[in-house]
Amino acid sequence: MRYLGIDCLALVPGTNLKYLTNVDFFQLERPMIVFIPAEDAELAVLIPELEAPAWESEVAIPSLLFPWSDEEGPEGALRRLAKGIRPQSLAAEYLRMRLLESSLIRSVWNDIHIAQAEDILTPVRQIKDGRELEYIQRANAIAETSLTQVIETITIGMTEKEIGRRLTASLLMNGGETVPLEPLVQSGPNSARPHGRTTDRKLEPGDLLLIDYTTTVNGYFSDLTRTLFAGEDVPAKVVEVYGVVKAANAAAHAAARPGASCQDVDRAARKVIEDAGYGPFFLHRTGHGLGLDVHEHPVLTKGNDLALEEGMVFTIEPGIYLEGWGGVRIEDNVVISGAGCRSFTQMTRDLTPIGLHH
Amino acid sequence: MRYLGIDCLALVPGTNLKYLTNVDFFQLERPMIVFIPAEDAELAVLIPELEAPAWESEVAIPSLLFPWSDEEGPEGALRRLAKGIRPQSLAAEYLRMRLLESSLIRSVWNDIHIAQAEDILTPVRQIKDGRELEYIQRANAIAETSLTQVIETITIGMTEKEIGRRLTASLLMNGGETVPLEPLVQSGPNSARPHGRTTDRKLEPGDLLLIDYTTTVNGYFSDLTRTLFAGEDVPAKVVEVYGVVKAANAAAHAAARPGASCQDVDRAARKVIEDAGYGPFFLHRTGHGLGLDVHEHPVLTKGNDLALEEGMVFTIEPGIYLEGWGGVRIEDNVVISGAGCRSFTQMTRDLTPIGLHH
Repeated sequence: MRYLGIDCLALVPGTNLKYLTNVDFFQLERPMIVFIPAEDAELAVLIPELEAPAWESEVAIPSLLFPWSDEEGPEGALRRLAKGIRPQSLAAEYLRMRLLESSLIRSVWNDIHIAQAEDILTPVRQIKDGRELEYIQRANAIAETSLTQVIETITIGMTEKEIGRRLTASLLMNGGETVPLEPLVQSGPNSARPHGRTTDRKLEPGDLLLIDYTTTVNGYFSDLTRTLFAGEDVPAKVVEVYGVVKAANAAAHAAARPGASCQDVDRAARKVIEDAGYGPFFLHRTGHGLGLDVHEHPVLTKGNDLALEEGMVFTIEPGIYLEGWGGVRIEDNVVISGAGCRSFTQMTRDLTPIGLHH
Repeated sequence: MRYLGIDCLALVPGTNLKYLTNVDFFQLERPMIVFIPAEDAELAVLIPELEAPAWESEVAIPSLLFPWSDEEGPEGALRRLAKGIRPQSLAAEYLRMRLLESSLIRSVWNDIHIAQAEDILTPVRQIKDGRELEYIQRANAIAETSLTQVIETITIGMTEKEIGRRLTASLLMNGGETVPLEPLVQSGPNSARPHGRTTDRKLEPGDLLLIDYTTTVNGYFSDLTRTLFAGEDVPAKVVEVYGVVKAANAAAHAAARPGASCQDVDRAARKVIEDAGYGPFFLHRTGHGLGLDVHEHPVLTKGNDLALEEGMVFTIEPGIYLEGWGGVRIEDNVVISGAGCRSFTQMTRDLTPIGLHH
């Protein structure tokens, strides 16, 4: 904060506040803002009265609370809080603070410039410690066990939504937490749309089946994709495209090491796909960071020359998408470690046939 | 919009945009803003390039798209959009628009005042049509079936979290959608905290067990609470407190009718609890609206003299919370209809004993 000339950081409920306190607070219609002065060990917290007991009993950081009731509203409590803090330069979360909170802040500190808190938080959050790596490892293990179990139950004629429901239920029963993202289950031609939807389409023989899904452990995400094939006789074109994506995935794993840049890893995967003649059909970046958020830094994309460091966690997820035919993506989660990277994801990257039993 | 002097409404992904388009878009790190001019049938949409095909294929409203790519960023596309719209007065969602989007808006229309879009949207959204009522009815039915099934499997010694996982899985398998809110499962003394958490505490004989949980159908919520008792011999104090809450719930049902005010319904429930001597232990409002959001208008609270109208949907959820002992809440969902209200929730409000089998 001092380096960036920020003397107060303002956080609202969400993953940054969870990162700071290890406690979950939810952002609903009642504004809650945590002020973190650069020069003071004590937090100042504008908090709905009903949430104050949870803060007092669960948050270990010294804090001065300014609770507000539904009857009086938050303005008076914020004015009391503002008597003790007079920030010259404030940073808040551009990806999370709403007009509800920013207009409150501007009502007490008129015309204050609000800088991007992400500039302060990203360099800290993108390096994971051992405890965080353990959560991501466990989320990966739950995800692998769950998909393996669900694959056994998939039959021809099952809808994408039904497969998604089974996977969500399996993730929960294996110890995953509820996440706001439904699994993306796409069959046949639907798999050609990397930003498509899970639909009521029924699985047909000869379909590719792409499943992209997340779970969390203590809020930390896994984010995996596997592409399966419905049937035994795999067409040559499926074998070819799948093989190219698998090789691109392996090339990215091999390129991910301390000192390599984000775009080096993207380049490694992209080159395999371009050399095979499918360059125009790899429609997205090679990967993204993950942690308490499903999309974090570092971002593995062309033009990003950020150097990878030990403890950075991200996805490797090359894909090829052919409109009208289908798509293949293989997504793993890795951490930069030692002289290279370690993969949290251990399940097979070979093409798996499904729907043969029953 | 004209009545409030607003000539452009700016919406970001979320329930208001879903209400308008009947399509789900998600708010992640890429800004998307839908501009709705009061005097023009065509929308102007700042949209990440990857989302543009979904808008074009799924949204039926005439729209002019301004897609932006990760390489160029959103600023150029917004400047192009701003050549065709010159709002004098803009409204945006205070509960949803982030600094990410509001700072972009202020970069093209300097110093523009941003009014609260909720003032425009709330009066529309708080009256539900037949299609919306049908979704809420189905969500209630799924919720009742699921809790009934899970109750059969609860045993002494099971943790609150395990009960919550089972309920979430059951809701999914019965056709509910993934919701970001985990069920609140509180046993014994934990049930005394209406804003508490689901913990690893194990169910003990003689516990109250409070379960507050949601599900959705096409995005429309149910939000129910039932309080159960672990064991056969119900202590007199439990019988008494439970009976008071049940009577308060019934009084609110009876008071909810067209023309009554929100605070009339709150007053009816609160009077029953006050008359029984438990007034200070009813720690929250009697209810809140629900629909695409789990908390909507109308709000059943003291001081709210809004008159209830046909089609308004809300919870009725009185409770009594005795620190160190436990809490009881009974929450139903109702719609103002005919001369009174109709309850979506049909499951028993009698005290249900659990954990006797196995």
